[in-house]
Amino acid sequence: MTLPRSPLAPAGFPDLPVIAGVRFATAAAGVKYQGRTDVMLAVMTPGTSVAGVFTKSATRAAPVLDCQAKIGDVSNAGAAILVNSGNANAFTGHYGQSSVQDVTRAVSDVVGVPVTRVFTASTGVIGEPLPHNKIVDQLATLNQTLSDAAIEPAAQAIMTTDTFTKGAGRRVEIDGKTVSIAGIAKGSGMIAPDMATMLVFIFTDAIVAQPALQSQVTAAADRTFNCITVDSDTSTSDSLLVGATGASGVDATGNADFATALHDVMLDLAQQVVRDGEGATKFVEIRVTGALSDSDAKTHGLSVANSPLVKTAIAGEDPNWGRVVMAVGKSGAPADRDRLSIWFGDTLVADKGWVSPEYREQDAAGHMKGQDLLIRIDLGMGEGQATVWTCDFTHGYIQINADYRS
Amino acid sequence: MTLPRSPLAPAGFPDLPVIAGVRFATAAAGVKYQGRTDVMLAVMTPGTSVAGVFTKSATRAAPVLDCQAKIGDVSNAGAAILVNSGNANAFTGHYGQSSVQDVTRAVSDVVGVPVTRVFTASTGVIGEPLPHNKIVDQLATLNQTLSDAAIEPAAQAIMTTDTFTKGAGRRVEIDGKTVSIAGIAKGSGMIAPDMATMLVFIFTDAIVAQPALQSQVTAAADRTFNCITVDSDTSTSDSLLVGATGASGVDATGNADFATALHDVMLDLAQQVVRDGEGATKFVEIRVTGALSDSDAKTHGLSVANSPLVKTAIAGEDPNWGRVVMAVGKSGAPADRDRLSIWFGDTLVADKGWVSPEYREQDAAGHMKGQDLLIRIDLGMGEGQATVWTCDFTHGYIQINADYRS
Repeated sequence: MTLPRSPLAPAGFPDLPVIAGVRFATAAAGVKYQGRTDVMLAVMTPGTSVAGVFTKSATRAAPVLDCQAKIGDVSNAGAAILVNSGNANAFTGHYGQSSVQDVTRAVSDVVGVPVTRVFTASTGVIGEPLPHNKIVDQLATLNQTLSDAAIEPAAQAIMTTDTFTKGAGRRVEIDGKTVSIAGIAKGSGMIAPDMATMLVFIFTDAIVAQPALQSQVTAAADRTFNCITVDSDTSTSDSLLVGATGASGVDATGNADFATALHDVMLDLAQQVVRDGEGATKFVEIRVTGALSDSDAKTHGLSVANSPLVKTAIAGEDPNWGRVVMAVGKSGAPADRDRLSIWFGDTLVADKGWVSPEYREQDAAGHMKGQDLLIRIDLGMGEGQATVWTCDFTHGYIQINADYRS
Repeated sequence: MTLPRSPLAPAGFPDLPVIAGVRFATAAAGVKYQGRTDVMLAVMTPGTSVAGVFTKSATRAAPVLDCQAKIGDVSNAGAAILVNSGNANAFTGHYGQSSVQDVTRAVSDVVGVPVTRVFTASTGVIGEPLPHNKIVDQLATLNQTLSDAAIEPAAQAIMTTDTFTKGAGRRVEIDGKTVSIAGIAKGSGMIAPDMATMLVFIFTDAIVAQPALQSQVTAAADRTFNCITVDSDTSTSDSLLVGATGASGVDATGNADFATALHDVMLDLAQQVVRDGEGATKFVEIRVTGALSDSDAKTHGLSVANSPLVKTAIAGEDPNWGRVVMAVGKSGAPADRDRLSIWFGDTLVADKGWVSPEYREQDAAGHMKGQDLLIRIDLGMGEGQATVWTCDFTHGYIQINADYRS
């Protein structure tokens, strides 16, 4: 099944900065797909710090377990990331683990980095053994064709049901010198907090000490990738890896502008994943304020963002604020019906527990016809706030997921 | 919008036992719908115990708050239940509370039971003031037309998007005498644990002391109404009320056969609600065993039952056990990938963490073509078990909820 490009997709792949110290190569290994690339290798120079965030699924895939065991290494060796699409190597028992061992050992040999610095990710069908020899057979060619300009082909090779390639980049000035960040992502279904069916790889030429990089990435993931949801389903394979090569010679450890730029790249990629949500026709920002805590605000926001009734109302361009009230009420976080206010766009629809006297449905209905929507919710109880992003729930989602064996 | 009768509906309304001590009447008050009944009154004799379970929503409707304040009354007076469809009297501020006061006071006056024994429930649109005078105007007529045989018209009057009336009954022998139980329910969307958009009214002529009845009802609700889900959404209005009139003269307090029969009536009604799930074409039982606790088993079961990817796969008759693995993994309850086994019907598809060597997809695919499906999941970790029920997720659900303002 070939899906049409999402109506919410950006105009094209962005013009990303080249990141000194990282090179990419892709190949068509025929893991499952024919006539397209399905393997991506990224190789980083010695001096690279690697940080990561992974799915919290209790049934997570073999490559995720291997990455988690390796992350936190603070050695100064080079590093490599090997990704395949078409097969998730998930729920494949001990065979899955030995596939990961075989692939990482082969990458280590060919590329010349320690096996403890080789990270892998696999995405695609669950429960089928990974034909890892097809991947290993491509490694020599991959290693010979590495290029620092090949990030867009890398973004293509990792796609599964994605309808567009996803990339984002930023440049930051530090002490008169420039450091750059560039990242790619894949993901369109099975997207929910805890990194559902997303693979994200971000690179920077800044010097960032590993523990600092890890804490920045973890904090930013909580406000970006863990604030998006397409269908509330969480994959067994999601991985975010960030490599800081240090090749610029500029130390960004603890620099606030760098942290902001890294966050912005992550948010940009996260929102692109929502914009490629299966069947999505609307991009929805849900901004929650006035909760007792930021965490309560996020709970309310995700409850609204995950509600099938809210998401189908959005698909129908219906400003159905009653369903928003329902979703706030069921979230489990504290709410007071009589202090709750709701806006669709700039239109106040519900004011402190009742429909606003000035509210005319046609005002909110106009906003709902747009492609980028805003739902604002104020709990009227405290200072807690959070913003989450989702898409609508359409016939397209049912079509893709009832008729297509992912 | 008139919906066709669900393909999963039973052949017809069952032949329910008449419950001595309770009488029903219905009327067309024109609350919202035209050309149909939309108000139901049930009046119970002095000596009646009333127990109830209500939505846990933080934004629950005014009638729910009023019922919760009254439940637990152990006086021996008569009791009345007044229900309207078309308007939920939810998120209607202080006006909503005064509507409930006006209606309950009027019922008390007309029927002659204390206002503390008048329970109300409203279902329909959220956020619009209840035109309660239309209901009050019908009370005298309702009181004059009460009949102990009118339970089926009562089931009709409380319907909203339901495509069939829901009733269930049982008879129990106690010491050579018969007591009877009969119940009705409404609900088809916004159905999830914590009693989502369901109204359930059950009556028995047994004598049951109020505290015993309440604890039986609470325990049975946890294994019946709180084990079903259509779309994971929870309504602001759900209410289950059980009245034991005692008119049979037979004391069933603490009787195990009575408790089983009451549970069976509740399970029957709960399953009928799933069978009327919006857009449903498959009824699915999910049986979880081998969890560390019953509560963990229920968490896993509901995670599978609520997963849009599992539910769309079922709609597509695809035995996609990878999505079941995913849903178990994301549930938050403990699981061990390498001890997990999954069956579709009698077919073992995944055995201790990997696809079963004997598994041929056509075996499971045959089961998926049926209308009543079974998914069995064994965690291989302990003795905890639970069974939950759901339906598939189809174009019909999107159609109903994207195009219809509920």
